[in-house]
Amino acid sequence: MMKSFKFEVVAQDKKARVGKLMSPHGAVETPAFLPVATQASVKALDTRDLHEAGVGMILSNTYHLYLRPGADTIAKLGGLHKFMGWDGPILTDSGGFQVFSLGFGIEHEVGKMTKLFSGEISGGLNPGGDQGSTLAVRTKLCKVEEEGPTFQSHLDGSVHFFPPEKSVATQIKLGADFIVALDECTSPLHDYDYTKVSMERSHRWEMRSLLAARDKNMFGVIQGGPFKDLRVASAKFVSEGDFFGVGIGGALVNKKIMREILDWIGPHLDPAKPRHLLGIGAIDDIFEAVERGVDIFDCVTPTRLARAGLLLPNIDVTKAVYKDDPKFAYLHHLFRARELLAYRLATIHNVKFMMNLMADIRQSIMEKRFAKLKQKWVK
Amino acid sequence: MMKSFKFEVVAQDKKARVGKLMSPHGAVETPAFLPVATQASVKALDTRDLHEAGVGMILSNTYHLYLRPGADTIAKLGGLHKFMGWDGPILTDSGGFQVFSLGFGIEHEVGKMTKLFSGEISGGLNPGGDQGSTLAVRTKLCKVEEEGPTFQSHLDGSVHFFPPEKSVATQIKLGADFIVALDECTSPLHDYDYTKVSMERSHRWEMRSLLAARDKNMFGVIQGGPFKDLRVASAKFVSEGDFFGVGIGGALVNKKIMREILDWIGPHLDPAKPRHLLGIGAIDDIFEAVERGVDIFDCVTPTRLARAGLLLPNIDVTKAVYKDDPKFAYLHHLFRARELLAYRLATIHNVKFMMNLMADIRQSIMEKRFAKLKQKWVK
Repeated sequence: MMKSFKFEVVAQDKKARVGKLMSPHGAVETPAFLPVATQASVKALDTRDLHEAGVGMILSNTYHLYLRPGADTIAKLGGLHKFMGWDGPILTDSGGFQVFSLGFGIEHEVGKMTKLFSGEISGGLNPGGDQGSTLAVRTKLCKVEEEGPTFQSHLDGSVHFFPPEKSVATQIKLGADFIVALDECTSPLHDYDYTKVSMERSHRWEMRSLLAARDKNMFGVIQGGPFKDLRVASAKFVSEGDFFGVGIGGALVNKKIMREILDWIGPHLDPAKPRHLLGIGAIDDIFEAVERGVDIFDCVTPTRLARAGLLLPNIDVTKAVYKDDPKFAYLHHLFRARELLAYRLATIHNVKFMMNLMADIRQSIMEKRFAKLKQKWVK
Repeated sequence: MMKSFKFEVVAQDKKARVGKLMSPHGAVETPAFLPVATQASVKALDTRDLHEAGVGMILSNTYHLYLRPGADTIAKLGGLHKFMGWDGPILTDSGGFQVFSLGFGIEHEVGKMTKLFSGEISGGLNPGGDQGSTLAVRTKLCKVEEEGPTFQSHLDGSVHFFPPEKSVATQIKLGADFIVALDECTSPLHDYDYTKVSMERSHRWEMRSLLAARDKNMFGVIQGGPFKDLRVASAKFVSEGDFFGVGIGGALVNKKIMREILDWIGPHLDPAKPRHLLGIGAIDDIFEAVERGVDIFDCVTPTRLARAGLLLPNIDVTKAVYKDDPKFAYLHHLFRARELLAYRLATIHNVKFMMNLMADIRQSIMEKRFAKLKQKWVK
C-alpha cells in the first residue's frame, strides 16, 4: 500500500463510524458521499461549484471515459484530474456495473439502461439466443465469459473485450486515486445458481485485478445477490484479500434486502478497511447503511433529481405554488422557461444538501447521537 | 432626467467615442456590449459568471418576461435586479422587435421566429387573410393598429393588446434602469410606402411611450428602413425628442445598408445622447458602428454561437482536431458528450471575448488608434 493512501477510523457510535480517507490528492472525512462525474463532469457543475458545495471526492465512470474520449487521450492530457480541473481525490469504478446494466439489466428490465438501449443497436451480441446453460452467458449488449466481459458500445455499437486487466489499466491511465476491481454486478432476478457461479467468477476477476494493479489502492467488491451464504463468502474474500477497501455491490433495489445484506456481511469485514456501498444515495438508505458501518456512498440520484426540478429533501420547484415564493420563484421560472441555469442551480442545491447531510451525520457520530439524527430523517 | 442617470463622452477618436453611462446601479464605459438575458438569464450563466467576465450591463426582453413569469410577479418579488440577482444596470427593450418578428418576420421569412412559430399556433390573428391595403396590417402572430400591436403568445396562443403605455408600464414594473420606447421594427422587405407609414406610427407610439414614462431614462428608436429621407427624419425625431438615448432599430440584416444608415443619421444625432445599435453584435459590425459614433450594442449571437461550440472569434471546438489539444480537449469532450457544462464554459468564453474586445476598442479610442485596431479585425 502506498504510504499516501490511508484510512483511519477516528470515532464510532455503535457500528457507525467517522473516518479519514487519505490520498495524494487530499483527505476526505467519512461517511462521505461522492457525486458522480460520469463523463468527467458532475452534470451541470464545474469543479469550483463542487468545491464550494463542500465536495471532497468524486467518482467517475471508467466505461464511459474508456469509450469517450478514451483513456489514452486523457492520459496524454495529464490524467483525469488535470483534464477536468479537479484537484481532490477521484475514485473510478471498474465498468462492472455496466457489464450488468448493458447485459442482464436490459434482459431483466431492472437497469437504467433498459430504456436507453433496448432495440437501439440492432443485432446485439447474441442473435442466436442461447443463455444460462453454460458459463458463457449471452445477453443483449454484454457477453460474460471467464476471460472477461465483451460489451457493445452504447455510442456506436463497436465491440470491446474488457477483461479485468483492461479495466485496471484503464483506471490507471485515468490516474484515479482509488480504483475498483472488475466484477459482474448480478441482477436481483438471478437465481441462486447463477449468482453463485457469477460471484465465484467475480472473485477470480478481482484477483486478476489485484495482480494487474501497480498500487494497491483498490476496492474489492462483494457480490452474492440476496443470498446470505454467498454474501458472507464474498465478504470474507474481499475483506481478507489484499484490497485497500471493501466495495459492496449488486443491484440493491430492495431496501429491506440491502439492510439484511449489510447485517450479514458486517461481522466479516476488517474494521480497518473503508467500506463503499456502490451506487446508493437515498437519504434513508444512507442512514441505514451508516448505522451498519458503511463509510462511502456514491449515486447519480441527487444530481438527476435536481435536473428534474426536485430539490432535496422534498421540494418540486416546478410546481405552480413556487411561482411567487421569494425563495424559489427565480428557480421556478428558470425551470418553466427551460433555462440551462436551472439545472446548475438545482444541482448545486442537491449536492450541497448531500454534503451538509453527511457533515451532520459525521457530527452526530462524533457526539454519540447518530440514532437520534437518524430518527429525524427516517420514519 | 433623474440625476443618477447620465451620459458623458470622455474621449473621441474622429467619430468613435468613449463614454460613461451612469445609472443608480452603477456606471458602464462605452462602447459597451450588453449580453442578452432574454428570460432573466443570460443563457447558461449566473450573475457571478457575468461579473467575472467583466459584464457591466445587460439587456432583458420585455415581451418574454411579460408573458412569463409576468411583470407583476417580478414586481412583487422586488424587481428584475432582485429576481435574477443582478446588481448592475439593466436595459429592457420595448417588445417592438417581437412585434416585428411575430408579424412580418414570419410573413417575410426574415426573422428568427420564422422557424420557431410558423404553423405552430393554428388560426393566428388573421384567418381572413387581407393585408397591406389598410393601416391595420394583419400578419400571422401580430396585428399592428394605430392604438398598438396585438400579438399572440408563442407560449400558449393567448392574445395580448400591447400598446406603448403597456410596454412602458411593464418595463417600469420590471424595474429596468433604461427603458425603450415602443416602435414597430420593419422588415427589410417592406417597401417605401409601408416603411413610411410604419415609421410615422412608430413616432406616435414613441411620443406616447415618453408620456407614459415616469422617468426619462428612455431610449427612442430610429426606424425608416433602408430609405435615407426616412432615416434622417426619424433620427431628427428621436434626437430632438425628450429621450435620454438614441436607439437605432430595424432589421439590419444587410451590412452595407447598416453602414449607410449610420452615415446618414450621424450628422443629425445629438452628441450628448448615448447611441444604441439594437440587436447588433458581429465583430465587423461593431467596428463599423463604433467608427460611426455608436456607443452601445446588444446581441444574442455570441451566446448562441457558444452553445453550438463556436468560440469567438473563430474556433469550432466540436471539430475532431481539438480532441487532443490541451487547451480545448476538455471542452471538446464536453460538447461531444453533450454535457451541460459545455454550454456554460463556451458562453463564458464568448462573453469574456466580447468584453475584452470592447475594452480594447475603448483603449484604442483613448489612444487615438482606433483605425489601427479596426484594421486588425476587419478586412
